[in-house]
Amino acid sequence: MTVETQYARFDSLQLSSGAKLEPVDVAYETYGVLNPSRTNAILLLHGFSGDAHAAFLSADAGLPGWWDNMAGPGKAFDTNKYFVVCSNILGGCRGTTGPASIDPSTGRPYAMSFPVITIGDMVRLQKMLVERLGIERLLCVAGGSMGGMQALEWAVAFPDAVASVIPIAATSRHSAQQIAFNEVGRQAIMADVDWRGGAYYGLSKPARGLAVARMVGHITYMSDASMREKFGRRLRGKDEFGFDFSVDFEVESYLRYRGSQFVERFDANSYLYITKAMDYFDLSAGYASLGAALERSQARFLVLSFTSDWLYPSYQSLETVRALRSRNRDVAYCELPSNYGHDAFLIDVKEQSDLVRGFLASTFAELEP
Amino acid sequence: MTVETQYARFDSLQLSSGAKLEPVDVAYETYGVLNPSRTNAILLLHGFSGDAHAAFLSADAGLPGWWDNMAGPGKAFDTNKYFVVCSNILGGCRGTTGPASIDPSTGRPYAMSFPVITIGDMVRLQKMLVERLGIERLLCVAGGSMGGMQALEWAVAFPDAVASVIPIAATSRHSAQQIAFNEVGRQAIMADVDWRGGAYYGLSKPARGLAVARMVGHITYMSDASMREKFGRRLRGKDEFGFDFSVDFEVESYLRYRGSQFVERFDANSYLYITKAMDYFDLSAGYASLGAALERSQARFLVLSFTSDWLYPSYQSLETVRALRSRNRDVAYCELPSNYGHDAFLIDVKEQSDLVRGFLASTFAELEP
Repeated sequence: MTVETQYARFDSLQLSSGAKLEPVDVAYETYGVLNPSRTNAILLLHGFSGDAHAAFLSADAGLPGWWDNMAGPGKAFDTNKYFVVCSNILGGCRGTTGPASIDPSTGRPYAMSFPVITIGDMVRLQKMLVERLGIERLLCVAGGSMGGMQALEWAVAFPDAVASVIPIAATSRHSAQQIAFNEVGRQAIMADVDWRGGAYYGLSKPARGLAVARMVGHITYMSDASMREKFGRRLRGKDEFGFDFSVDFEVESYLRYRGSQFVERFDANSYLYITKAMDYFDLSAGYASLGAALERSQARFLVLSFTSDWLYPSYQSLETVRALRSRNRDVAYCELPSNYGHDAFLIDVKEQSDLVRGFLASTFAELEP
Repeated sequence: MTVETQYARFDSLQLSSGAKLEPVDVAYETYGVLNPSRTNAILLLHGFSGDAHAAFLSADAGLPGWWDNMAGPGKAFDTNKYFVVCSNILGGCRGTTGPASIDPSTGRPYAMSFPVITIGDMVRLQKMLVERLGIERLLCVAGGSMGGMQALEWAVAFPDAVASVIPIAATSRHSAQQIAFNEVGRQAIMADVDWRGGAYYGLSKPARGLAVARMVGHITYMSDASMREKFGRRLRGKDEFGFDFSVDFEVESYLRYRGSQFVERFDANSYLYITKAMDYFDLSAGYASLGAALERSQARFLVLSFTSDWLYPSYQSLETVRALRSRNRDVAYCELPSNYGHDAFLIDVKEQSDLVRGFLASTFAELEP
């Protein structure tokens, strides 16, 4: 089965910075059927470079969704049972308004005149979409990495609109190290002469800078152990060192390939804006503490992390769990064993599936007894 | 007390690649006095971006050496007792021949015509220097990070010339992740249009690419915990987010500063050649196993690592220790508690000092009973 990406337009979105976007388009997909009581809707939230295409095969390219192993008929997010929605984030480059979109006031791409956005802005736009789809209260919001950060934001920003929350491999705020890795990516892009202060649309892209940024990203998404297993010190297409600066090792070839591939599908300015939104994220901002923020939520939580994830290490998930427990909120936490590092939430889904399936079933049973 | 960097010239150095360098200059410093029996000489080996200036104040700039807290009168490498030598590595840019040096056959800088070098080549040049200084057998070779890799190479390449070895925060071979981080740095430099295939001497330097490479490096030298302590989410010179792409966070400011500072003192092509040498390093190459390689050594070993060092994690030091023990070699191993990450060998030196001091004293007592 293939699915088509759909589009919704909203007249205006007020942003945390004080700026306003008018209008805003949202790319989204839905799978399954909304039940008559509208209690079976789940919102999936993608990570940094994801898009609205979460499950099934895309109508245009025939490609599986980014969480196809988690969402579909009979899968953890069971589309035979639930109505599953996924939208591309604000600031993205996969159909939702972002820096590459046309600024109606100039007729040209926003580029760096696009306003700086926050995770809160992304979530407010998602709320508008969900309302337009006729959903007052979501059975669940779930996502990994930045998607998990959005899920946490949902729980605090719209406590009445969420029955359960599944933040996976996420954090309630970016640490200095996480900001640092994002800043390196931004500097790599802005150092590329082809970046041109962001005004590269219609010209050559800042391909080299974006590729370097993505290479750094890929290292942080994997673990030392998974890189050792996948590449080790194996040479690429040769028996001995080349004694030059072409590719010697498999891992070099892989990073260069993934870097250049990314340039084809991702906009460099979106990289800047989305990483900035992540760095700004601090769920406790404006509250006395993280506990005070999460006290607003009335949802049940399933918090998941992975042993080898050093980019969003388990201690960050535990901070969220402790804050929830300190306010007597309903939370289950599991640290899952995996060698895949941060990528585990996309790859190592067997145990994750079982946990999500059971959690959703019991939440749904409470709503529809 | 200040010290002057000295220089030695050698007619020719045969390299692992098959190429030959003619001539080769070496920048070095010495501290203390060689005893009449020539048994008190210690060779200190610097890390990636270090130089010959290990201790005391430099005569030209009045700056302390890179291991000034470890080497000096009464310190761990006690210059009242030992004759301490440190030289800048082959391929470097601090006085020893490297890609920025003049190629006598053209009268212009080597740039990318400089031959690719190895840790083995660096060590062979150090051996020539040590011989010229009249030293047949070193009391100790010691170094951290890439300096520790050189120390291990010394033990295997010149077993008769080393009585003891102290590899700190090091490895017997670069892992896929270590190669990956180095490759990102190389790609960042080579992506800079100012790199010009390496032929930038006398023109503008590839400053932006080199700065990005260094920023990645700095993240890997620190730990998540030390970055949290040092920077946290503190803003830089402002009370609220700027909602733009200037500096928001302290950690961004720090990385940008360290990146631009590095450009002033380091040559981008040296970055390429030295990281390549590290990536090529595998002490077991040419032997049946790491144990078979280390079996050649007759030295005593003190192997040190640090708990929070995730760039050269303790398991890599333990691989060396296990290989040494499997051949019944004399080895002591300590994992030292520290929050400073890989930088700990340069910063967190209290316990390191005590261990090194005792180890050197007992080794020296055996040689000079």
